[in-house]
Amino acid sequence: MNNLQARIEAHIETLSNFTATPGQGTTRLTYSQEDKQAREYIKEKMKEYGLQVHEDGLGNIFGKLEGTLKDAPSVLIGSHFDSVPHGGSYDGPAGVVAGLEVAALFKEKGVKPKYPLEVIALIEEEGARFSGGLMGSRGITGLLSEEEFFKLTDSNGITTVDAMTEIGLNPSLPKKRDPKTIKAFLELHIEQGPILEDKKIPIGVVKTIVGLTQFEITVEGQAGHAGTTPMNRRADALVKAAQIISQLPALAIAEGDGTVVTTGKLNVFPNGSNVIPKKTVFTVDIRSGKEEHIQNVIRKMNNLIESNKEDGIQITITQQLYMEPKVMNPTIVNLLKQTSGNLEIPYCSINSGAGHDAMVLAEVTDVGMLFIPSKNGLSHTPEEWSDSLDITRAVEILFETAKKLTEAEDHD
Amino acid sequence: MNNLQARIEAHIETLSNFTATPGQGTTRLTYSQEDKQAREYIKEKMKEYGLQVHEDGLGNIFGKLEGTLKDAPSVLIGSHFDSVPHGGSYDGPAGVVAGLEVAALFKEKGVKPKYPLEVIALIEEEGARFSGGLMGSRGITGLLSEEEFFKLTDSNGITTVDAMTEIGLNPSLPKKRDPKTIKAFLELHIEQGPILEDKKIPIGVVKTIVGLTQFEITVEGQAGHAGTTPMNRRADALVKAAQIISQLPALAIAEGDGTVVTTGKLNVFPNGSNVIPKKTVFTVDIRSGKEEHIQNVIRKMNNLIESNKEDGIQITITQQLYMEPKVMNPTIVNLLKQTSGNLEIPYCSINSGAGHDAMVLAEVTDVGMLFIPSKNGLSHTPEEWSDSLDITRAVEILFETAKKLTEAEDHD
Repeated sequence: MNNLQARIEAHIETLSNFTATPGQGTTRLTYSQEDKQAREYIKEKMKEYGLQVHEDGLGNIFGKLEGTLKDAPSVLIGSHFDSVPHGGSYDGPAGVVAGLEVAALFKEKGVKPKYPLEVIALIEEEGARFSGGLMGSRGITGLLSEEEFFKLTDSNGITTVDAMTEIGLNPSLPKKRDPKTIKAFLELHIEQGPILEDKKIPIGVVKTIVGLTQFEITVEGQAGHAGTTPMNRRADALVKAAQIISQLPALAIAEGDGTVVTTGKLNVFPNGSNVIPKKTVFTVDIRSGKEEHIQNVIRKMNNLIESNKEDGIQITITQQLYMEPKVMNPTIVNLLKQTSGNLEIPYCSINSGAGHDAMVLAEVTDVGMLFIPSKNGLSHTPEEWSDSLDITRAVEILFETAKKLTEAEDHD
Repeated sequence: MNNLQARIEAHIETLSNFTATPGQGTTRLTYSQEDKQAREYIKEKMKEYGLQVHEDGLGNIFGKLEGTLKDAPSVLIGSHFDSVPHGGSYDGPAGVVAGLEVAALFKEKGVKPKYPLEVIALIEEEGARFSGGLMGSRGITGLLSEEEFFKLTDSNGITTVDAMTEIGLNPSLPKKRDPKTIKAFLELHIEQGPILEDKKIPIGVVKTIVGLTQFEITVEGQAGHAGTTPMNRRADALVKAAQIISQLPALAIAEGDGTVVTTGKLNVFPNGSNVIPKKTVFTVDIRSGKEEHIQNVIRKMNNLIESNKEDGIQITITQQLYMEPKVMNPTIVNLLKQTSGNLEIPYCSINSGAGHDAMVLAEVTDVGMLFIPSKNGLSHTPEEWSDSLDITRAVEILFETAKKLTEAEDHD
């Protein structure tokens, strides 16, 4: 194992310790104490690697290596550092660590970029605390307005502003970033699927990221005693939700072509064993590589809900997120492939079934993305694992690519 | 309004202030700070009314008026003082308050009983904190063993023992009570259904309490990323639970005869919008006046779950409670009816669709029960309301009945 790989392993291991559920995977919610601990570590490493550190009004972290060109746009490199509840150590951190180590190689090898290099560590990609997901990148690009950001609350009713303030962040700092300050964005992420592992190929160069939409569905009925309310006088918010949820998978299956639909989150109110549920709130996440499939499933879901309406039951549908499928920048895609070839690292083209910050940043800049294999295709679970050797290979490709994009002079 | 009715209203109002959700109904979970506040009030009133107070190893409260007969069994009168989340002010407290005011009438009128009168205020009838329900009465009668009691935890993993200790109760005190120390049990409760209101009759004399059973069903699948796991490679614990829950109502409807089935509580793990659910835990509550119907629904539910099993999904079924339908003691039923007639208070016979502590105590002693009307038939909701005049009427009936059962000398 070389020094680079050893440092990568140390970063991953350290970050995985910043979890609210030790021994039961990584639970690092945005603006939590574990976020704060991870944040301190990332900022410390950025400084150690010679970067100028600042945080924006969303809590995104930036570590900048100035270029020789005055007021030039930056090549951004990084990923997110939040996690789902009981997730793994790689989804997000692998890309943040890769960004850090690309900067370390710039320093180690004395590379002077013409355009600045900025390592970025983004918040709330997963949407596990504040619904919607991709919050850090949506904030930077202005897809999430400051007004919307201020209105968001977590499931305990805590606002973004209160949560930020709690860990010492300043919500009044700027959020949206002028697109003119960004030259390109590079992201490494774990595949979170079985393809690269099945093919035994360590690097996937991403071609397209699936489009995705997320809805929050609220079903409201009438609470009542479980023993004294006859079946024909009930307006049961959970039975109604269950009828809808049990019919959703068939909509994606009928669509085919890799289309998926998921209800991951559901809360029942008041949630007592002998009280008929008054309210049920659940999410619906729809994804596909083709926009047409997403639109079809949305339409069928609306029809399904319409046909499930009945007296005493109210159903409201809120679309929280819509991202169309995104094609990566062809020039950067070719650069990544050429570099992999030059370094003799096996690679293949791949589509991303998951949404990523790269997808959001593609709205404002040229984006390239690499995948590395996920063991057994698993992610969002404590069993999530990727090989630090594959991260090392990706860092080598990204370092060479970043040199090209920042038009660096190589002093090696 | 006479003094008695005014005192009853004051008790109900005071107790309703001991809630974890002010302005959003009564949420008084067992061993919570609100339990402690209600407990202090009830004990204070018991002392004021000349009763000797003690608490058992479950936290049930007893206020005893000694009889003239040495070591004689007691006539118990009371109900429970816990609530469901966001419940009302009457379910439970109405019966505790009635017990207190029967004792007040004994004191006021200088009535000396031969057999002791004991006002009781029971814990955890609703099962909102520790699953199963009827915990206070099951503990007294030995249907819940001390060993089982010690093993119970709430949804945060807090044990009964730790929760009791937290509010200053002593879990090592005796729990089961020798049946020989109990002569009879009287309970007033709100109807929680529409029958008395529809008939415009203020008093229902309960004939039979429905049988009930509660199950906890755990569905375990495989977590995974909502975007990268193809539909045909999923083992989704929530979709499977939804399939089962959406088919349960039909089982009760097919059975008919007032049979009801309810899933009131459901929790999803890890409950993130972009994670395929790994585990779903939900309750099934089945009730009927006839045991045969309960058994039929249990059998059909087991078949339904069996037919829903598939690769990668594990389903476990735990029966947490089973109570057969209970007929009230005919002698006490007649006594309650005669007394109502003598006092010229209109009454009718009624069956109870809800389970009650009276049902559990019927295992060891002679039991009688009264209902008063519930406005719009509602309970387990902040809108729950009953007329204090009806509680007053019930207290008058229960006072005369308690005099008979304690073989009191009347000094009026």
